[in-house]
Amino acid sequence: MNQRTLGAITMTSDIVSINKAKKTASSAVDAMQSLVSTEMKGVNETILTRMHSPVVLIPQLAGHLIASGGKRLRPMLTLASAKLIGFEGTRHIKLAACVEFIHTATLLHDDVVDESDLRRGVETANTIWGNQASVLVGDFLFSRSFELMVEDGSLKVLKILSGASSVIAEGEVLQLMTTNDLTTTEDAYLEVISAKTAVLFAAACEIAGVVAEKGEDAEKALAAYGQNLGIAFQLVDDVLDYSAKQATMGKAVGDDFREGKVTLPIILAYRRGGTEEQAFWDRTVGELEQKDGDLEQAMAYISKHGTTQDTLERARHYGQKAKDALAIFPDNEAHEIMDNIIEFVIERAY
Amino acid sequence: MNQRTLGAITMTSDIVSINKAKKTASSAVDAMQSLVSTEMKGVNETILTRMHSPVVLIPQLAGHLIASGGKRLRPMLTLASAKLIGFEGTRHIKLAACVEFIHTATLLHDDVVDESDLRRGVETANTIWGNQASVLVGDFLFSRSFELMVEDGSLKVLKILSGASSVIAEGEVLQLMTTNDLTTTEDAYLEVISAKTAVLFAAACEIAGVVAEKGEDAEKALAAYGQNLGIAFQLVDDVLDYSAKQATMGKAVGDDFREGKVTLPIILAYRRGGTEEQAFWDRTVGELEQKDGDLEQAMAYISKHGTTQDTLERARHYGQKAKDALAIFPDNEAHEIMDNIIEFVIERAY
Repeated sequence: MNQRTLGAITMTSDIVSINKAKKTASSAVDAMQSLVSTEMKGVNETILTRMHSPVVLIPQLAGHLIASGGKRLRPMLTLASAKLIGFEGTRHIKLAACVEFIHTATLLHDDVVDESDLRRGVETANTIWGNQASVLVGDFLFSRSFELMVEDGSLKVLKILSGASSVIAEGEVLQLMTTNDLTTTEDAYLEVISAKTAVLFAAACEIAGVVAEKGEDAEKALAAYGQNLGIAFQLVDDVLDYSAKQATMGKAVGDDFREGKVTLPIILAYRRGGTEEQAFWDRTVGELEQKDGDLEQAMAYISKHGTTQDTLERARHYGQKAKDALAIFPDNEAHEIMDNIIEFVIERAY
Repeated sequence: MNQRTLGAITMTSDIVSINKAKKTASSAVDAMQSLVSTEMKGVNETILTRMHSPVVLIPQLAGHLIASGGKRLRPMLTLASAKLIGFEGTRHIKLAACVEFIHTATLLHDDVVDESDLRRGVETANTIWGNQASVLVGDFLFSRSFELMVEDGSLKVLKILSGASSVIAEGEVLQLMTTNDLTTTEDAYLEVISAKTAVLFAAACEIAGVVAEKGEDAEKALAAYGQNLGIAFQLVDDVLDYSAKQATMGKAVGDDFREGKVTLPIILAYRRGGTEEQAFWDRTVGELEQKDGDLEQAMAYISKHGTTQDTLERARHYGQKAKDALAIFPDNEAHEIMDNIIEFVIERAY
């Protein structure tokens, strides 16, 4: 049996197991949505009521992004975490809305920073209303989020979410500084995605532990689950940017490449490539001098070195850590769904 | 005695009284600075320590603006208000730094929104480091400000400052919507400046009342002082944009005009001008089609209708309200200085 046949057989068995995983994964989202559907109605209501302002452009612009079909994964994690630990109250509903407001504010500012035209397949707010309005409405949502937290009145929650917001901003600045920098190490990249993405996942889960008052161990475990899930999520996102599947999700392929963002698929390809390949990356990503066919060439190099596959392996590693973080909690429906959500986050790539 | 002579005499007597007022005014700033110098050292220390981040671009960029010679009027008002009501503690020092962080964050975002090149006579952060970094470092300072407030632990202070932040963002969006709109009414303009500027002055003063626990009347009086002082401050700022004096302060004259910002000197000139003048404003400010000599023409129309003088009259009205708001407090050094600061804010125009 030669290498090619062996590859084909492995691939067939991979496809079987992937299809199985895919089913678990997509039904995991459905399952989580129905697990928290009552509370999520409350979250959506809070979002709609509290993004209101007499300045009509604010609800108009914010509503455009909020209504554009995100899964609301982060607030869903707050609600599911509360179920996991048996919280019976309703305080976490308002706080889940805070998490979504912070997320929406960062998306608005991200799109300005990245000069993006499309998000979730629709025109970005900055394309429609301009950068100026996007910056200011982001500021509004961010402030409004803190107003909501103050209404809840937990200084511990305020500490977690204000700390998370600072770290997110640090992560975004760090990402800006690694843009075009092909010497970025895997660890530096991990620091960026831990800060810009994972910290909000962690906070979303942790605050459920705080309002439920189940003690520090529970809070820490929830934070660890969110943190590791968030890292896996961003790793997969960065793989998707080089995946044909992205196109079917209404997103442009190669945005990161065009913006010179140095993500793990490129970091690994750069290190594994010879002088010729490195010269290619230096020109296209380092100097951002790109011409027709460069994206295809980039994807060919990435494929040659299997760096998206290896990035997904890293994602699985963090997924496993997320799963183990949850292991201290009793088996229940929420536990199973939160385990399966890890699969979903990773299997999005296929 | 003809009109011209009468004008000259009035002007001479004006100059005498203005020179007197100017002296009181500039010594008022000195007096306030020395009144709160010990506490201000603490504020500056807090600012330097807490704008720190391992992401070096953050303290670099934030430090550029923070060190660029602002008077720190807002934190100074927190400190002076505390003296006024006899607060003996130190909690307000950290909170004064929060106020300055919020102010700095809004300046960073303002400069991006206005595409400004100069602030306080030096290059803006967005000119040096780009819009992206300015947006993100603004977000960082804003988050850091909330972290500091959480450390202080007063939910009432958090409510005041998170509420103020939302209103500031609303005011900025409202300003964006009135840009180029010459039908903006004086009341709509007042709403903009009350929100974008005065609310932070009000909050800066009010929080001193909260930490001093002197009761709601004291808090309300301090908030009213700050609110009215802030409106006067912005009215004078808007006059200065059409004043030759601006140039001597290292600021460009006519920025508002070039950006099509509809401020009171223009609102009044537009209403008072005939068809020809209105056509001029429609083209230059409404359509933003400007050519050489337009700024000079604009200033000539403004001068013809005396609209900067009338804007300053409005400022005096709010200054008087600020003074009366303070009248419930006993006479002391801080009281006198806070009264004189009102003069300073207005006499900057001369």
